[in-house]
Amino acid sequence: MSNYLWLVIAAGALGVLYGAIQTAVLMKASTGNERMREIAAAIQEGASAYLRRQYMTIGAVGVVILIAAWLLIGQWAALGFLIGAVLSGAAGFAGMLISVRANVRTAQAASESLSKGLDLAFRSGAITGMFVAGGALLGVAGYYAFMTQGLGMAGSDREVIDGLVALGFGASLISIFARLGGGIFTKGADVGGDMVGKVEAGIPEDDPRNAATIADNVGDNVGDCAGMAADLFETYAVTIVATMVLAAIFFRGQPYVDVMMLLPLAICGVCIVTSIIGAFFVRLGKSQNIMGALYQGLIVTGVLSVGAVWWVITTLVTGPVVTSGGLIIEPMNLFWSGMVGLIVTAAIVVITEYYTGTGFRPVKSVANASVSGHGTNVIQGLAMSLESTALPALTIIIGIVVTYQLAGLFGIAIATTTMLGVAGMIVALDAFGPVTDNAGGIAEMAGLPPEVRHSTDALDAVGNTTKAVTKGYAIGSAGLGALVLFAAYTEDLKHFSAEALPGSFFDGLGTVAFDLTNPYVVIGLLFGGLLPFLFGGMSMTAVGRAAEAVVAEVRRQFRENPGIMTGQVKPEYGKAVDILTSAAIREMIVPSLLPVLSPIVLFTVVLWIQPDKANAFAALGAMLMGVIVTGLFVAISMTSGGGAWDNAKKVIEEGFTDKNGVVHGKGSEAHKAAVTGDTVGDPYKDTSGPAVNPMIKITNIVALLLLAVLASGKIV
Amino acid sequence: MSNYLWLVIAAGALGVLYGAIQTAVLMKASTGNERMREIAAAIQEGASAYLRRQYMTIGAVGVVILIAAWLLIGQWAALGFLIGAVLSGAAGFAGMLISVRANVRTAQAASESLSKGLDLAFRSGAITGMFVAGGALLGVAGYYAFMTQGLGMAGSDREVIDGLVALGFGASLISIFARLGGGIFTKGADVGGDMVGKVEAGIPEDDPRNAATIADNVGDNVGDCAGMAADLFETYAVTIVATMVLAAIFFRGQPYVDVMMLLPLAICGVCIVTSIIGAFFVRLGKSQNIMGALYQGLIVTGVLSVGAVWWVITTLVTGPVVTSGGLIIEPMNLFWSGMVGLIVTAAIVVITEYYTGTGFRPVKSVANASVSGHGTNVIQGLAMSLESTALPALTIIIGIVVTYQLAGLFGIAIATTTMLGVAGMIVALDAFGPVTDNAGGIAEMAGLPPEVRHSTDALDAVGNTTKAVTKGYAIGSAGLGALVLFAAYTEDLKHFSAEALPGSFFDGLGTVAFDLTNPYVVIGLLFGGLLPFLFGGMSMTAVGRAAEAVVAEVRRQFRENPGIMTGQVKPEYGKAVDILTSAAIREMIVPSLLPVLSPIVLFTVVLWIQPDKANAFAALGAMLMGVIVTGLFVAISMTSGGGAWDNAKKVIEEGFTDKNGVVHGKGSEAHKAAVTGDTVGDPYKDTSGPAVNPMIKITNIVALLLLAVLASGKIV
Repeated sequence: MSNYLWLVIAAGALGVLYGAIQTAVLMKASTGNERMREIAAAIQEGASAYLRRQYMTIGAVGVVILIAAWLLIGQWAALGFLIGAVLSGAAGFAGMLISVRANVRTAQAASESLSKGLDLAFRSGAITGMFVAGGALLGVAGYYAFMTQGLGMAGSDREVIDGLVALGFGASLISIFARLGGGIFTKGADVGGDMVGKVEAGIPEDDPRNAATIADNVGDNVGDCAGMAADLFETYAVTIVATMVLAAIFFRGQPYVDVMMLLPLAICGVCIVTSIIGAFFVRLGKSQNIMGALYQGLIVTGVLSVGAVWWVITTLVTGPVVTSGGLIIEPMNLFWSGMVGLIVTAAIVVITEYYTGTGFRPVKSVANASVSGHGTNVIQGLAMSLESTALPALTIIIGIVVTYQLAGLFGIAIATTTMLGVAGMIVALDAFGPVTDNAGGIAEMAGLPPEVRHSTDALDAVGNTTKAVTKGYAIGSAGLGALVLFAAYTEDLKHFSAEALPGSFFDGLGTVAFDLTNPYVVIGLLFGGLLPFLFGGMSMTAVGRAAEAVVAEVRRQFRENPGIMTGQVKPEYGKAVDILTSAAIREMIVPSLLPVLSPIVLFTVVLWIQPDKANAFAALGAMLMGVIVTGLFVAISMTSGGGAWDNAKKVIEEGFTDKNGVVHGKGSEAHKAAVTGDTVGDPYKDTSGPAVNPMIKITNIVALLLLAVLASGKIV
Repeated sequence: MSNYLWLVIAAGALGVLYGAIQTAVLMKASTGNERMREIAAAIQEGASAYLRRQYMTIGAVGVVILIAAWLLIGQWAALGFLIGAVLSGAAGFAGMLISVRANVRTAQAASESLSKGLDLAFRSGAITGMFVAGGALLGVAGYYAFMTQGLGMAGSDREVIDGLVALGFGASLISIFARLGGGIFTKGADVGGDMVGKVEAGIPEDDPRNAATIADNVGDNVGDCAGMAADLFETYAVTIVATMVLAAIFFRGQPYVDVMMLLPLAICGVCIVTSIIGAFFVRLGKSQNIMGALYQGLIVTGVLSVGAVWWVITTLVTGPVVTSGGLIIEPMNLFWSGMVGLIVTAAIVVITEYYTGTGFRPVKSVANASVSGHGTNVIQGLAMSLESTALPALTIIIGIVVTYQLAGLFGIAIATTTMLGVAGMIVALDAFGPVTDNAGGIAEMAGLPPEVRHSTDALDAVGNTTKAVTKGYAIGSAGLGALVLFAAYTEDLKHFSAEALPGSFFDGLGTVAFDLTNPYVVIGLLFGGLLPFLFGGMSMTAVGRAAEAVVAEVRRQFRENPGIMTGQVKPEYGKAVDILTSAAIREMIVPSLLPVLSPIVLFTVVLWIQPDKANAFAALGAMLMGVIVTGLFVAISMTSGGGAWDNAKKVIEEGFTDKNGVVHGKGSEAHKAAVTGDTVGDPYKDTSGPAVNPMIKITNIVALLLLAVLASGKIV
């Protein structure tokens, strides 16, 4: 058994190694001319400064939780938390470090050819992707190996499980702060910069006279790269952990319990290999179809993963397995569950591309609506954003039903794990976006010829879709992953209740029913349901405030220094970066703590108003489900809607022919309306929407940890 | 017992009588000058023509369902459906007929004094309110009396329950069509008219040169009046029915079962009396505070209702009652449950006023955000719209917990009934809004002096808040009411399962658990959860399409007839009305059928993919809860957000001083941004959001009827 575990660790290390080698290749690429290097250096400096401050702030929160985890649960939980937090933070930092180096090189490469630009941008995405997946796998598998092989605990020991869950919590905590802080920074800069530059002063996007441009480019790196990397790290790690926990519970006492706990690690291990192979197939063909090139790599990864997952499952699971509930699962049914995970991934990619790609009805309808004005643009964008939730939700519903029929709850867990297995490739597609966006910004500011901007714009438009795709994928997997976490919660509860010592907290609890006819379940659902809405409202407000601060600052610079507008004086870029840094860090705290504290508050309040512990556990469980149900829709609507708005603007910029045959281009009234929609979509798709994903999982993990704390007997 | 039932019927008749007398008073008021009468006649004609076509279309759907109800359930269900549908339709028609007569009279009265304007506008609102509440009470109590006293059935007979549920379904079906069709019409006209008039041609709102003005005013009457009246009729009737059904199930076989079924009718009966008394207290004081005058009436109604509900409950329920589950309920606990209903109403009124009133942070923040542009206005509006869901949801959560502690599920039902009891007064506050909006339009078109418009604008701003208040109230009560319906569904299911004849559909079903650990419950929740989002997306798209049709038409008229712009030629108002009529009727069909068909489809599909009937019933039940959970948030966010945008625009029009001390007024850049937000908010608050309310209840009622059909043994 342990041999396979070392192979998994080797696969994780391979991912990291791939990242390191590709980084060396990337660094050799030309950084263009002096002006480009100068701009890139400013972006690098701003991004590093922001992330350092962000992590310092998160660190303060983290230390408090670290001590609490140690005191309330135990040392291995505390260590797990530390590993998860540090690695998630490192993944974010690495993502940022790569992208601030790749942007200028991509700008230079794009000035040579579109193919070279794509190659460099995707290479940098793949580096981040493999760092994320490899690092997460190394972290989880390594810590598991340390506890089981090093400390000699059994895999399904309570301490091992608590340690893994705490690792997931560490990753989630960093990721919500990083997603939110980075998201507020990047969209504050983007929205504020656009309002005061494009709309007010009438200068183009990324014009060097706009004091917010450097901040905008910094934002792409700290939000879309670092935040996204931390988020996907978390999704990946938490999903593996949740599946392992479920395996430990379902197969407790069986001889193959360790094999079943290894299974998710092994699936992710082979998928790292298939992702690396797929990455080599991303190559621009003669048709110059960028999306086609990316799909080529994705499809290779997908097809290879089918065989790889089959090999892993048939090798490890040699016969039927039986869950504690008495369900007999055939190995092939686990394989088919994994396939459902891949199919769900493919379906979400296709659906998201439909809703955010420039060639389909939704984006075209938003572009058409822009012709009649700002209001209709926003209405149509909101309509598409609401509508775009239906098909992904149906996909997830079908996925749940099919995998449940195949292999019960564990089937859902295996599907989610397989879905996440290919995360390395998906992250590569995503991280590619902000790099090209930045490259475009650098090309504009450095005054490169318009053809370069044209190339980077083409890459950027595809980047908008791939970014939306990853978000759809992340939230879809989060929805499924949260169901696995919810199952872990209910199974844990059963376990604690069954094994309760006399006088302990769980003594006499009996079976907790999560029945919708129990009003405490209903209020749990409603309370959970309100969290994504409140969280969305708070984070949108935060972006608005950050943007207003930027607008005020840029206006001040224009006013006090008329030389800026004439191009004689350079604006103080650093000032805008500083203002945003403070704003983002201040604004991220409260919304991030909302999902951390809500489970604890709800549980305590229900227990306080009535004495039945079962009702308090039922309300808490229902709350987890409530967060998933509304969170899924809120997140998908925001990310897809935002992508549609962004690309509707791009469609018009390239010259859009409306229903009546009139052509609308840059600077037209339709374009102005489309810019409004894009501005609205910015915080939707890059701040609030994606942050809902870690938020859903944090509530679930906190609930699991609450059980561990109550079971530890250290506070009650 | 039956004496009290006749008293209830008398109370319903009193409401209708009050409406009739006040109508006579209203009709005596002056209709102003020739030009005003001419405009009003055009509005009347358009509104009547639209409603006739709308009801013809709904009629066709209704006849199909009527026949189905007859064949699948029985004659008394069919008759109940017919009564509910006809009365709901009549309430809508009456609301429209009153408001198209009140608008011109209010314009004339406002030209005399603000106080007279308020008096007339509120009087017309009160007429609609009492027609709605009185009519609904008459319908439910009358049909109940007919079946029990006339046909001699027992109150808790299956046929009586099916008849009442079918009556609720009839009301709901009409109401979703009316809400949606009317909403698409009114907002298509409003958005389209604003885009092409205010934004494009630069002429003021309601300028007679705009061909869409009459359509806009028609829309206020068919959407905000007729649609709202049908909606509240439905909410009122369905809530009473659901409480009666629950009483019949909970107290089946007890000697006081009839009393308990009478209780909701009696509570609503006395509240009609307190609403009528309260209406006399709406009177503008010296401070000229319009909102204060309205609150005065509301508070009188509220305070009197406390005593009235106490009297009803202590008179009818003379000792503790015991539910079938063995819960003993003291009469005073039922009274306190009723009080919770009143407190929830008051809390929702206050919260909604906070989020949509011109004097508080949310609207001010949207106004401030308008200063930096269209994008930030929309972002801040969306942020407030998301945030505004939290407090109402918490209020409902607290309401559920407290009433459940007091009197179990029946406590929640009594709270909801009492909440709805004062609907007459609440509808009065709401219907007041569109009348003043119309009066302003007529004043503008007829060229009355600007002071008149100033008065109607002041009334209209309050109307925006009261409209939002009613919607918050309707959706809040729908949330609670749907819980009651869900309880009716689960209790019905228990009943059918327990009494199943050998070989019948429910034979061997056993207990259906709605446990969140069952994946079929999870998919039900997710499927239900997606409905409000998809519905919202479809209805927003519909408004966008209708608005585009209006824009095209008005542009055509301007282009082909230059005399319109110079004021020499009158535009063809009728053409715009015709176009909208077709658009609204075409667009309302599919979204309205979504909630009708979804429960049937889900049930059938789950039964088809796996044989266990219990899972199919569990998925269906969970779907009902899923619709409630996301529907509540979607509806509140849309209605409050829309109200905030609308009033932010009003605040700027009155001269808004921003944070930096700069004043922004009509025509400023900030105003343009605020107009965009208002445009976006229009379909949010007047089409999609309010239609979610009947949508939630339709899914619940269809599920109840599905049980009745399956139990009837006529199809399976």
